[in-house]
Amino acid sequence: MKPKCVVLLSGGLDSSTLLAYLLAEGYDCLPIGFRYGQRHTKELTYAAAIAQHYNVPFKVIDLTALKDILPSAQTNDAIEIPEGHYADSNMKLTVTPNRNMIMLSIATAYAITSKASRVAYAAHKGDYAIYPDCRTAFIRPMREALEYCDYERLHLLTPFICDSKADIVLRGINLRVPYKFTWSCYNGREKACGKCGTCVERLEAFSKNSIEDPLAYEDREYWKTVIAQRKGNE
Amino acid sequence: MKPKCVVLLSGGLDSSTLLAYLLAEGYDCLPIGFRYGQRHTKELTYAAAIAQHYNVPFKVIDLTALKDILPSAQTNDAIEIPEGHYADSNMKLTVTPNRNMIMLSIATAYAITSKASRVAYAAHKGDYAIYPDCRTAFIRPMREALEYCDYERLHLLTPFICDSKADIVLRGINLRVPYKFTWSCYNGREKACGKCGTCVERLEAFSKNSIEDPLAYEDREYWKTVIAQRKGNE
Repeated sequence: MKPKCVVLLSGGLDSSTLLAYLLAEGYDCLPIGFRYGQRHTKELTYAAAIAQHYNVPFKVIDLTALKDILPSAQTNDAIEIPEGHYADSNMKLTVTPNRNMIMLSIATAYAITSKASRVAYAAHKGDYAIYPDCRTAFIRPMREALEYCDYERLHLLTPFICDSKADIVLRGINLRVPYKFTWSCYNGREKACGKCGTCVERLEAFSKNSIEDPLAYEDREYWKTVIAQRKGNE
Repeated sequence: MKPKCVVLLSGGLDSSTLLAYLLAEGYDCLPIGFRYGQRHTKELTYAAAIAQHYNVPFKVIDLTALKDILPSAQTNDAIEIPEGHYADSNMKLTVTPNRNMIMLSIATAYAITSKASRVAYAAHKGDYAIYPDCRTAFIRPMREALEYCDYERLHLLTPFICDSKADIVLRGINLRVPYKFTWSCYNGREKACGKCGTCVERLEAFSKNSIEDPLAYEDREYWKTVIAQRKGNE
C-alpha cells in the first residue's frame, strides 16, 4: 500500500509542483487548501483544477474566522499589494502572521484523521529572505513537534527546501506540471499582474529555464526592470 | 510596561489558574478560547466569566469549520463520553487530533498581531498519560518553533508542566481563583456529571487539598469508587 501524505496546496507554482513530485515518488496524496481571507482566493480555483488534473481529492478548510488576527496585504484590501522584487523589505507587508504553523497544524490533524503518516509543504530557498516560517530554523523544530503530537509519529516532508524557484520550475517541467492551472499573483484579477513580488519571481524563474510561462499576464516585461534595478543596486 | 502574554483559556480549572498565576506574575494577559465543536461549549461561557472577573479581554475563535477533521468524543455527539479515570486507555476517545498545536499556532498569530511576546498554556503532568500534545517531547520543539516563526522571538510559557492537578488546585486556592466560574466536565449539562475522566480528576484534586469544589455535581461521590478500583488494580 502506498504511504499517505497530506500536501499543503495553495494552487501556486511551488505547491503544485510538490504535488506532482510526491505523486511521482509514489505517495497517495491528500492535498489541502485554506481560505483565510486572502484576496487571491482565485488560487483555490486553480488548486482545485490541479487536484482534478491529478485525480486526487482536494480538501478546502475555511479559516475566514481568523481574518482579523491574520492581517497582511494578502488578506486586507485596504493595504496595497507592493510591487517589485520578492526579497525587498516592503514585501513584509505580504506576510500573514504564523500562517505556515497554522496550516501545518491543521494539515497534521487531517493527516491523523485520514491515517496519513506524512505532511508536506513546499518551503524553498527563495522564501527564506522574507518569510520567517519558511526558514530551516522554523522547519526543524516543527518537524520534531509533528513527530510527537500524536501517538504515532508523523513526518514533515520539505523536499524543495534547498531549491530556488528556478529549480522548482525545472523539476515541474520535467514532471510535466500543467502550469496553466497554477496561480501565483497576489492580486486576484483576470490576468496575473506581473508586478507583485510573486509574479516577478515566477517570471524570472521561467526565464532562467528559457521557458515561457503559459499564464496570461497584464505586464510580462516589468520583472526585467526590477531585476536590472536590483543588479544595479548590488 | 508589562510584558504581554496570550493565554489559552478553555474555562477549565487548569487554564483559569494559569490566567490568575500570570496576572499575579505581572503579565498583561490576553486570553483566547476556541469553539471547535466541543459538546462542552459551556466551558466558553465560564471562560468569559473568568476573564470578566479578572477584567481582561477574552477573544473567542470559531474553529467549527474544522469539526469534520477534529473528530473525538469531545466533538461528536454520536460517541459517548467515557466514564472513569482520566488516565484509562478508553479516555483516548476524548483526544481531539493535534488540538494543542492548532490552538497554539493561532494563539501565536494573535500574539504577533497584538505585539505580545509570550504565549502560555496550562499543560501539566497529569495530562502526559493520555494527551500526546501535552508531553514535554512535544512542548520542547513547539517552544523552539515559536522562537523562529516570526521576525521577533516569541516565548512559549508552560509554568505548570511539572504540576499535578492537585498542585494546580493548591496554586489556585492561594491565588483565590473563583473556581465556581470554571467548567471541566466533558458533558455540557446543567451540572457537572462527576463521572467523566475530567470530573473524576478534578474532584480528586480538590479532595487531596481537603477543599470542597464549589461547582454543582450530578454525582459527587462516584470518583471515590474509580480511585479505589484503580488502587485495587495496581
